[in-house]
Amino acid sequence: MVTASVMPAPHAPMELRTFDRPRLEPGAVLLRTLGSEVCGTDTHLQRGQLAGVPYPIIPGHVAVGRVEEIGGSDPVLDVSGAPVEIGQVVTYLDVYGTCGRCWFCTIAHASTRCPYRKVYGVTMSCADGLYGGWSEHVHLRPGVHIVPLPEGLDWRAFLAVGCGMPTALHAMTLGNVAFGDTVVVQGAGPVGLSAAALAQLRGAGQVVVVGGPDVRLDAARRFGADAVIDIASTTETERVEAIRDLTGGRGADVTVEATGVPSAVPEGMRLTRDAGRYVVVGQYTNAGDASLNPHLDLNQKHLDVQGCWGSDTGHVYRSVQVIARYARQFPWTELISAEYDLSQTQRALDDVAAQRTVKALIVP
Amino acid sequence: MVTASVMPAPHAPMELRTFDRPRLEPGAVLLRTLGSEVCGTDTHLQRGQLAGVPYPIIPGHVAVGRVEEIGGSDPVLDVSGAPVEIGQVVTYLDVYGTCGRCWFCTIAHASTRCPYRKVYGVTMSCADGLYGGWSEHVHLRPGVHIVPLPEGLDWRAFLAVGCGMPTALHAMTLGNVAFGDTVVVQGAGPVGLSAAALAQLRGAGQVVVVGGPDVRLDAARRFGADAVIDIASTTETERVEAIRDLTGGRGADVTVEATGVPSAVPEGMRLTRDAGRYVVVGQYTNAGDASLNPHLDLNQKHLDVQGCWGSDTGHVYRSVQVIARYARQFPWTELISAEYDLSQTQRALDDVAAQRTVKALIVP
Amino acid sequence: MVTASVMPAPHAPMELRTFDRPRLEPGAVLLRTLGSEVCGTDTHLQRGQLAGVPYPIIPGHVAVGRVEEIGGSDPVLDVSGAPVEIGQVVTYLDVYGTCGRCWFCTIAHASTRCPYRKVYGVTMSCADGLYGGWSEHVHLRPGVHIVPLPEGLDWRAFLAVGCGMPTALHAMTLGNVAFGDTVVVQGAGPVGLSAAALAQLRGAGQVVVVGGPDVRLDAARRFGADAVIDIASTTETERVEAIRDLTGGRGADVTVEATGVPSAVPEGMRLTRDAGRYVVVGQYTNAGDASLNPHLDLNQKHLDVQGCWGSDTGHVYRSVQVIARYARQFPWTELISAEYDLSQTQRALDDVAAQRTVKALIVP
Amino acid sequence: MVTASVMPAPHAPMELRTFDRPRLEPGAVLLRTLGSEVCGTDTHLQRGQLAGVPYPIIPGHVAVGRVEEIGGSDPVLDVSGAPVEIGQVVTYLDVYGTCGRCWFCTIAHASTRCPYRKVYGVTMSCADGLYGGWSEHVHLRPGVHIVPLPEGLDWRAFLAVGCGMPTALHAMTLGNVAFGDTVVVQGAGPVGLSAAALAQLRGAGQVVVVGGPDVRLDAARRFGADAVIDIASTTETERVEAIRDLTGGRGADVTVEATGVPSAVPEGMRLTRDAGRYVVVGQYTNAGDASLNPHLDLNQKHLDVQGCWGSDTGHVYRSVQVIARYARQFPWTELISAEYDLSQTQRALDDVAAQRTVKALIVP
Repeated sequence: MVTASVMPAPHAPMELRTFDRPRLEPGAVLLRTLGSEVCGTDTHLQRGQLAGVPYPIIPGHVAVGRVEEIGGSDPVLDVSGAPVEIGQVVTYLDVYGTCGRCWFCTIAHASTRCPYRKVYGVTMSCADGLYGGWSEHVHLRPGVHIVPLPEGLDWRAFLAVGCGMPTALHAMTLGNVAFGDTVVVQGAGPVGLSAAALAQLRGAGQVVVVGGPDVRLDAARRFGADAVIDIASTTETERVEAIRDLTGGRGADVTVEATGVPSAVPEGMRLTRDAGRYVVVGQYTNAGDASLNPHLDLNQKHLDVQGCWGSDTGHVYRSVQVIARYARQFPWTELISAEYDLSQTQRALDDVAAQRTVKALIVP
Repeated sequence: MVTASVMPAPHAPMELRTFDRPRLEPGAVLLRTLGSEVCGTDTHLQRGQLAGVPYPIIPGHVAVGRVEEIGGSDPVLDVSGAPVEIGQVVTYLDVYGTCGRCWFCTIAHASTRCPYRKVYGVTMSCADGLYGGWSEHVHLRPGVHIVPLPEGLDWRAFLAVGCGMPTALHAMTLGNVAFGDTVVVQGAGPVGLSAAALAQLRGAGQVVVVGGPDVRLDAARRFGADAVIDIASTTETERVEAIRDLTGGRGADVTVEATGVPSAVPEGMRLTRDAGRYVVVGQYTNAGDASLNPHLDLNQKHLDVQGCWGSDTGHVYRSVQVIARYARQFPWTELISAEYDLSQTQRALDDVAAQRTVKALIVP
Repeated sequence: MVTASVMPAPHAPMELRTFDRPRLEPGAVLLRTLGSEVCGTDTHLQRGQLAGVPYPIIPGHVAVGRVEEIGGSDPVLDVSGAPVEIGQVVTYLDVYGTCGRCWFCTIAHASTRCPYRKVYGVTMSCADGLYGGWSEHVHLRPGVHIVPLPEGLDWRAFLAVGCGMPTALHAMTLGNVAFGDTVVVQGAGPVGLSAAALAQLRGAGQVVVVGGPDVRLDAARRFGADAVIDIASTTETERVEAIRDLTGGRGADVTVEATGVPSAVPEGMRLTRDAGRYVVVGQYTNAGDASLNPHLDLNQKHLDVQGCWGSDTGHVYRSVQVIARYARQFPWTELISAEYDLSQTQRALDDVAAQRTVKALIVP
Repeated sequence: MVTASVMPAPHAPMELRTFDRPRLEPGAVLLRTLGSEVCGTDTHLQRGQLAGVPYPIIPGHVAVGRVEEIGGSDPVLDVSGAPVEIGQVVTYLDVYGTCGRCWFCTIAHASTRCPYRKVYGVTMSCADGLYGGWSEHVHLRPGVHIVPLPEGLDWRAFLAVGCGMPTALHAMTLGNVAFGDTVVVQGAGPVGLSAAALAQLRGAGQVVVVGGPDVRLDAARRFGADAVIDIASTTETERVEAIRDLTGGRGADVTVEATGVPSAVPEGMRLTRDAGRYVVVGQYTNAGDASLNPHLDLNQKHLDVQGCWGSDTGHVYRSVQVIARYARQFPWTELISAEYDLSQTQRALDDVAAQRTVKALIVP
């Protein structure tokens, strides 16, 4: 039998449930879970803020596990083309079933908008299988994109940023940072902190994190932010002024939004210089409208604003490489504030919702 | 003596004035004006809607003229490196004085945001010289970027779109249209009509113009629009529906805004498909705020929104090449609704403000 | 029974053979072939110049057919997401089996380099099925990307360029043509002629085709080339001179190679201006080495050279849209020099090899 | 009087000469030289390998100095828009006179191909002024783009890479490195070592330097190269194999050539993976031809090859920001092998030509 933590319905408390160990179809892989993480999405799920979620679900969209069983007799290949082996430590793209045949996949090359994709831990029901990381085992269906962790990479280091990092890496890639640019990151959660680290791995000349609370701003400083601005003790006008003071009066070359607060979007436009670039990645749920001035904030500013949705396998794969290669420079595991076992997932959710943590792990 | 039409101050009627013929400094060029145009900017100027305008001014930022005199004894070179010759028909970039040395010119390579640039017909006073096209002569100061009209190109064909075309060309370049894309243009004025033509010169699969009034929608059809949508008889919801019906339910691949109306901006986002591209070029003056939903309109949509300000010499040069090369395909001169002499400029402004024209020319 | 024309082995003459009508697996589609084409690749195949070809094969990688049967009871979707219907006229991407899971598919996003892809008419044996267009029927396996022809598009118009156009469209997309650019196309075969048309659908200011023989240069002129240069009666030096004369001494802004001749590559570099762009798409088989000067031809020239391999579904889909939308402007069917039935395929190959045709069709 | 080291003619030994202190025109700046560097270009100059050099010249195209005098009474602005002040430590773009008006400047936006540009220390004669860094003073003419060194940046740290870094930064920008990519650098001179550092500031997953001799490979390791390959003890085949071994059999994602040896170019193509990117920046002089296979090395490979010429002000400005921001990570000054005074410049040239140094400085 397999024990997992289940979110039965919106607004209902987490429950421990047991499931049969799955019988693997050819091409499937069963992981023994080493760890999974708690992210803001999980708190949104419990509040019922996402559409199309087939409760009950096993949360935990990002996880790391050890390969325990492989379905069928043919080798199962990871994304680098090597056969997956029993005992190997791997992660995987949480998005399953991107079709490769629809208009968005084939014509627009916008795979994160494929309508057939499902997400482990979010849009796959525990009635159908062990499709989430808050479980002793995770069932990787045939076709899941498996990414091996390099030897020498502590799986905790990966999980410390493994959820926010691919999102941040996608956003920072779209941000087109040039060497020496000033990069402003709005938000000091896991996506924002990953973005601050990645800005330095694009050769930014100056990295500023705007957010809170203190525990997160301290982490931002440890991860190399040249300056931090506390959102709680400043007004929008003061923040715009502060960024201009740091940039010869111009504003940020590149700004990345990772807050989830609608009013952050027009503010981010104003934090950015004329002819700069602004990537909006944090508006993951519908939290209402925002008002802006199309002439001043967009057109006269010659501003490029890029909405950024989801991640693909490349973002996860590249995250793994970056986390491993630059582990000496960035103390990833320091971001882990607390670890919880499967019986403590409700407390984990409460701590994350209250921003008492930087990163919380579930370790079955 | 030189006669010109002068805008003395905001809200004041146009006046005819006479000026001394200028003495040319070395490197300057005096044009005998063949024609200039009236654009929406000129009506904004008369209403005092632009900041930093040193009234009195001679309007007419785009003009075509015949070279009548060249200052100094050294050759003056056009942008292709050839010496300008007496009798030659030329146009020029209306933006004068882009410094080539400031941070925006040298580091950001965003020359349209150079703070030193001045604009013929807009930010140069007639107290200082013949710096606008509504005049018998135009004084091109040393360093003005001169673009020759190719032989065989009717100067009226150039002026029919010579003001809106470089702006549209800039916007359509930023639009990154792919072969076969559906392109929606919001606005059927000179910029919008130029954009509709240019969409076909990017190989668009379908071009839709959303605007009015009828005279302009008719012009849009003659310029190859596959469909037009009358803004006056439809709601935003109906327009979004109409575009979805034309695109398999997805929305436009690329949308270009050329209206000047703030609410057009969130609407344009909704007209565009997920992972599409939206260029905002028509918000030339501050006409107020607009409200949008950052989650639905931007982030989940993975939308790329590009503000587009001004034009540079390349946009004018390329416009000239395109207008000349595709003159058989597009009947540019049909866009000219009326021509006015220097004594009729107030009537021209009134006709343009009332949208009684597609394009109005001033012919001294 | 189904009749098809088979290429038994390299250097062997074509043969008519009959096959059982296939039993369709769920998701498969059987086409009644309307037409297929002969391309240079087919002559290379007969000469044994491609590696990894599982002879005997049914040639004809591009084809158009009418849907005659659909395997299974579930709908089969085309790339726009609509269900394929009996009687519908469709084409398809000849590349089958791009895996969507390997490193090239997921990390490099370079699907044309996926090692698992097979090509209808090239790398699929007739021992395994009706996998080529020179046959009364074509068996589309589950997962083949089906692209419907729009109503009103003559299938002959599509086939007139349906093989070369996606390749040219890929190349011209990589060419990043700017409005008004001078585009030089090396080669006047089907890829080159398609490229010359597409250059005009990118708003080129001038299109020059360098090639031969006369029948193809005539076609180039009818398709809008502003100038043609006969490769047979000129030297490389003269061609470089000729292009410089047409471009103010600078050279082409964008050059596209579509010849298959190695020495065309250094020549193409010299035909292109400093800081220009050169796309090499015609070197489909190994025809030997070429010598160039890295300092003069590449580094000092600040030249961008892009090799371009294969096409994906998007290229075929976009080609269909472009061919349909611009059929009034470009007389596609005029490119068809001759049609052959299944018993005449050897003659067709001979005519193509001798360049006696512009485009030859096989019409079963 | 001002003492400078002069290169009288090709193949002639260096000489000390004295010059009058220049009278500054308005907008000019006189620097007291703190240091200049010796680069490969200087050895090419002494061998007469560059065309159009107006000997006698004062070499030293990159230099740092303290502002000693400012011409005229108006402020002279640096590229950030701040007035230059007496006593300030600055560098400058060695390229003077980029016109901002020719076809390459205005239409192609390819300023490094502007035909009017002159280069301090290379194409400006000492008969005309103190236009090179191997001199007690450097005369910055009006319009020279001045870049201030940030407080806290040791000028030696800048000069340690100040010549190669802008070139490498230009190349690495064109290289479009993605997070986690494997980057191979051909050449371990100042450009190659700068490129290896910058690859890590683009988030490369693996950096490999191919070059020699040992002193330079040691420096490459200290600057973070994950692997080095000694060019002297390996064959091309072995090097291609070695890179494939490090990349799952694929080759480098991005390769940067910084060697000056023609045969390095086809080799670099082979070191790079299919659909990868190759930047050629080291072929600064004409050292002969190279032979490649257009089918295998370019077309089938879907390779993107970018020639990279010169640097602009942005590259220098961004280099300064990067050198200052990442000084803790990279021990720039360790690259300085030796310093020479103005009387020792011939020895400096000899040491550089013999590759006895990594970086040699001239300190007047």
